[in-house]
Amino acid sequence: MAEALTLHEDPRSGNCYKIRLTAALLGVPLAARAYDIMKGETRTPEFLGEVNANGRIPVLQIGTGTDARFLPESNAACWYIAEGSALIPQDRFARADCLRWMFFEQYSHEPNLATLRFWLRFVGEAKLSGEQRAQMMPKRLAGCAALALMDKHLENQSFFCGEGATLADIALFAYTHVADEGGFALEDYRHVKGWIARIESLPRFVPMD
Amino acid sequence: MAEALTLHEDPRSGNCYKIRLTAALLGVPLAARAYDIMKGETRTPEFLGEVNANGRIPVLQIGTGTDARFLPESNAACWYIAEGSALIPQDRFARADCLRWMFFEQYSHEPNLATLRFWLRFVGEAKLSGEQRAQMMPKRLAGCAALALMDKHLENQSFFCGEGATLADIALFAYTHVADEGGFALEDYRHVKGWIARIESLPRFVPMD
Repeated sequence: MAEALTLHEDPRSGNCYKIRLTAALLGVPLAARAYDIMKGETRTPEFLGEVNANGRIPVLQIGTGTDARFLPESNAACWYIAEGSALIPQDRFARADCLRWMFFEQYSHEPNLATLRFWLRFVGEAKLSGEQRAQMMPKRLAGCAALALMDKHLENQSFFCGEGATLADIALFAYTHVADEGGFALEDYRHVKGWIARIESLPRFVPMD
Repeated sequence: MAEALTLHEDPRSGNCYKIRLTAALLGVPLAARAYDIMKGETRTPEFLGEVNANGRIPVLQIGTGTDARFLPESNAACWYIAEGSALIPQDRFARADCLRWMFFEQYSHEPNLATLRFWLRFVGEAKLSGEQRAQMMPKRLAGCAALALMDKHLENQSFFCGEGATLADIALFAYTHVADEGGFALEDYRHVKGWIARIESLPRFVPMD
């Protein structure tokens, strides 16, 4: 990797952790700049103008100074870092299937597991709005359905795209392994628990905190 | 493309249309099998067992008979079809940036624009549940924010990743060009309107219906 990489992140975010874990597993150096999303630090005019007009983290910065380029969306940042490595399958179908699980993660998994974790662990149930409370049960059911689908898929294979870890596993691991913080009982998903242990045993694995 | 491709789809779905548009622009033959999601045709034991355990369309089927493989998630299916074509940028950053807009589409765009279109055009406002009604305003605001971000990005360039169309444009076009069916006023987004016209002028473009 020729250019310096800097991660604009909130260390409590699983989406940011995905990128740190990808870089760690591949031995790629990654600097970090921390923001506190609870204090609105990603909604300042500087952040919106220079880093991400969407006001969200993570953002992967590639290069420095006036040549710097900025890449939002956690899974796109993981893809940039992992290009050419074993974390992205070589086979055409397997590569698309890896993306399939990464899109599943952002559409059917993260909006349920990550949001409930954020509300229950960081905002606090007593401070939720009525609108948020009304969303808790739909998100609980959809999150359980996502975990059940993952559990079934892992019944007969070690990782999501076969016998080796790929970005599909990293993307899904981030919020799954802390799902209990959002009130999900991982004991109900035996194959998912085995898969979590396999990921935590990968060489150069780094924990979230 | 050596193997036969079959799209399991509901023709009214923008997510299915993305895949048909990708194949059409590239001149790739694509068979189709239609389901009516309003009648639960993607929740039958046959569909769940053979096509997609997630009960969702679209699913791209690659090959036939016992060798057939199935690829859910619209943007992953587009990626499979477009590999090696100009719809996926060659440059490493541009390729990740193309994925960035595709993840943005599934996370910040589709859940708002597509869901409001489905509720207002196909379910009908009078038949919405209380829970769905409570979600209308948050989805309206988030959908407008997505369109505003797109409009700003297109201020100085013809397509999302530069001067040529990529999968990022196809993914975002699907539900943007019918956003009025979900109650969004595209007149407010001048650069988006110009971009829609550019996509509709691409060689081999096919409309949704």
